Amino acid sequence: MAAFDDLMTFTRETEALAQVAGRLSWDQETVMPRGAGAQRAEEMGAMESVLHARRTDPRVADWLAQAQAPDEAGAAQLRLIRRSYERAVRVPADLATALARLTRRSQGVWAEARANNDFAAFAPVLTEVLTLKREEGAALAGGGDVYDALLDAFEPGATATELQAMFDEMREGLVRLRLRALEGPELRAISGTFDEAAQMRLSRELAERFGYDFTRGRIDKAVHPFSSGSGDDARITTRTSADDPFNCLYSTIHEVGHACYEQGIDRDWHLTPVGHGVSMGVHESQSRIYENQLGRSRAFCHFLYGRMRDAFGEIGVQDEDAFYATVNRLHRGYIRTEADEVQYNLHIMLRFDLERALVSGDLQVRDLEAAWNDRFAADFGYPVDRPAHGVLQDVHWSVGLFGYFPTYSLGNVYAGCLHEALRRAVPDLDDHLAQGDPTPATDWLRAAVQRHGGLNSPRETITQACGGQAPSAAPLMAYLEEKFGDLYPG
Amino acid sequence: MAAFDDLMTFTRETEALAQVAGRLSWDQETVMPRGAGAQRAEEMGAMESVLHARRTDPRVADWLAQAQAPDEAGAAQLRLIRRSYERAVRVPADLATALARLTRRSQGVWAEARANNDFAAFAPVLTEVLTLKREEGAALAGGGDVYDALLDAFEPGATATELQAMFDEMREGLVRLRLRALEGPELRAISGTFDEAAQMRLSRELAERFGYDFTRGRIDKAVHPFSSGSGDDARITTRTSADDPFNCLYSTIHEVGHACYEQGIDRDWHLTPVGHGVSMGVHESQSRIYENQLGRSRAFCHFLYGRMRDAFGEIGVQDEDAFYATVNRLHRGYIRTEADEVQYNLHIMLRFDLERALVSGDLQVRDLEAAWNDRFAADFGYPVDRPAHGVLQDVHWSVGLFGYFPTYSLGNVYAGCLHEALRRAVPDLDDHLAQGDPTPATDWLRAAVQRHGGLNSPRETITQACGGQAPSAAPLMAYLEEKFGDLYPG
Repeated sequence: MAAFDDLMTFTRETEALAQVAGRLSWDQETVMPRGAGAQRAEEMGAMESVLHARRTDPRVADWLAQAQAPDEAGAAQLRLIRRSYERAVRVPADLATALARLTRRSQGVWAEARANNDFAAFAPVLTEVLTLKREEGAALAGGGDVYDALLDAFEPGATATELQAMFDEMREGLVRLRLRALEGPELRAISGTFDEAAQMRLSRELAERFGYDFTRGRIDKAVHPFSSGSGDDARITTRTSADDPFNCLYSTIHEVGHACYEQGIDRDWHLTPVGHGVSMGVHESQSRIYENQLGRSRAFCHFLYGRMRDAFGEIGVQDEDAFYATVNRLHRGYIRTEADEVQYNLHIMLRFDLERALVSGDLQVRDLEAAWNDRFAADFGYPVDRPAHGVLQDVHWSVGLFGYFPTYSLGNVYAGCLHEALRRAVPDLDDHLAQGDPTPATDWLRAAVQRHGGLNSPRETITQACGGQAPSAAPLMAYLEEKFGDLYPG
Repeated sequence: MAAFDDLMTFTRETEALAQVAGRLSWDQETVMPRGAGAQRAEEMGAMESVLHARRTDPRVADWLAQAQAPDEAGAAQLRLIRRSYERAVRVPADLATALARLTRRSQGVWAEARANNDFAAFAPVLTEVLTLKREEGAALAGGGDVYDALLDAFEPGATATELQAMFDEMREGLVRLRLRALEGPELRAISGTFDEAAQMRLSRELAERFGYDFTRGRIDKAVHPFSSGSGDDARITTRTSADDPFNCLYSTIHEVGHACYEQGIDRDWHLTPVGHGVSMGVHESQSRIYENQLGRSRAFCHFLYGRMRDAFGEIGVQDEDAFYATVNRLHRGYIRTEADEVQYNLHIMLRFDLERALVSGDLQVRDLEAAWNDRFAADFGYPVDRPAHGVLQDVHWSVGLFGYFPTYSLGNVYAGCLHEALRRAVPDLDDHLAQGDPTPATDWLRAAVQRHGGLNSPRETITQACGGQAPSAAPLMAYLEEKFGDLYPG
């Protein structure tokens, strides 16, 4: 047992340091003085190099060679530690350092290029990032598929081929739903001015209703909402805009889904590899089911309509049906993060196909803007009006996140599967949602998914939660067809 | 140059990590969710062990053996790195670990004992802390004086003998001032209810007036005000209480003094050993001169009286003279942190004498409460009414801070020296202060003291700022005699 215990002690300290690094990012996005950026980059760099040294520490290999897992959870810990160690040591130290340095710089270049709508200013550094990421992917793949090796960082065990098949299954139905919705008369967006302090108060109330534990977390404002931290300190952020309260409220519910996953994991596993959400896809399944299948359901909208009128007075929506339609309206737009439940996945498929082509070498960075614009026009039916609304809209590629985008849609697929199982398990859920009480749903999700953390693989996690049924796109598509077929009868 | 450069690169990363650890403490005192305490202790422990490993890294000794300083600042860096390394390696690793673990626990025991007014509940763990601190002091002293070795951590180069001589010089005058003031009719304290948001707004205004750079810092509320961080991220905290706006305003000015010292250091030295305030005593000289000699001056009170009436309306003080007297009133009280400029130093002398006796073994922990109560009654003329107002009031000893208290009074002494030199350098300072503009003073302090950081020893720092005059208690005593002789003519 000595090797196992020593390894877990060492790993626990590494996990604690990773929490510290994560909190430093939280600080940067919420409270950091604006003149502290350069110093902060050095502080982050120092934390990263401490963490990298620990993740590639040769003692980990020795302990792994000798350690015996005492139980099932111990076996999962060893599996996750081995996986992390093997991935870390496969990447040459020089390459890891060069990537860290480059992506710190390239994010700034991207932000400026986006502000200036100038893809040419971003292309050279993106080429450098792509070159290093391909090297990293090749080192990780060890002869296997380079894109899959990058994807594996975010969704262990997933492959592009399998995701492609899943997305192919969805594509036609999504396009059909989109066309039918956008051909008809456009549903009205909400209009008016909504007190931002009242938005935050309602956000806090919704967070509590969805089970967020404020004694182990907090809500702040940030430019881009995110969740951060795990165990007993899982924080979320949201944003307010005077003319769009839904952005605030649904960003909050989304991030609460992420944070409740981290808060819901068995306490015994805090500060261990099993004590985190198991993958980006499963994480996104929680945020999406909280936000969409629960938060945008007709039943919950009944409740929210009343609460919004309490909070803001007359909100310019004629009745409950109109409110539900407004919350769920399909609308034209360029921006992934503002997309509705249907079109969101089309945004992802576009990025997935383009980034695979970039990684394989079938697409050159210099041709990326044109490829994006062509594909967008083909999929959405209108041209991109400026690079900030097109190829420059997302931060991901600038910081080397290749293989990340598809996990968003995978999360939607998983949310569809879980929602189907949840409705079977809690047949009267709508009665509770209509009272503003998602507890039967969040309790079920905690028991079925959240508390297990990284005990099983992502796919197994969803399969077990769904009573043995393997994940597929069918439940999500059925849910979307029913919901949007109803809203947009065509 | 290679060894010097390598050493500075390594040291800079250590400094960056120390900033991260400091920010974690800031987070804990300001924004941390209340349920995150146990996890946070592990995170702090992990950071401390990373920092300890770096501070005792054998490569530092190798680099120090070979490094050549390129210039005067480089020589100061080497001196400070050598000092830190030698102190760190003299303390056995087991002892350092045991102390870190013990003081984390003992702080909680102290807090509970204070809440229950039960010194006996605290005595056993304080005995343990004292035992380990004496061991640590002996290891550091290498045959020299144990108390001096502990004091040296906070005030490099200072000795108890020299401080004792300084305090002896002050004692009689302080007692005389105190007796004269408290024999006469007591000056009125401010009374009323003061909007706490308005206190914070005025705090921010005062911070700006005293030169605090909000682009490289921020103000939050905390239970006990403190300053934290350096370079481009030097934050402060304050507190509000509806019936005592001065607590908020003068805490803010005090912490602004600390933070301006850190913000005022030459940029080239950020994230290096020279890039910090040189000692606790010199640090306290900045906070005290901002708070007292500037902030509580008659001229600045003229300005503040007007601003407080703008902020709070009628504040129940009849005129400017009464306002000045209220701000500077001497008053009976048990608590060091609430004491006025005169009696504060008597609180320190009491602690200094008791902690020296504890460290030397002349006083046992079991006799500490009685010793405190006897000394307090003798010095202040009335008995301590409960342990929370006496021996249990300060956190310091519970976390092993022996040798720290005297630096507060040393800071007052240094502030007295600097104030004398400042008044010579800026003869029309009162005209500016009366307009609410301390800039000529803060500019002088920045140039004379702050920008040098740790370039010279603490004593040299003050001596040079005062045009070659070595520090003594005389200027402080002359300032106090004049100010309080005027307020309390007896």
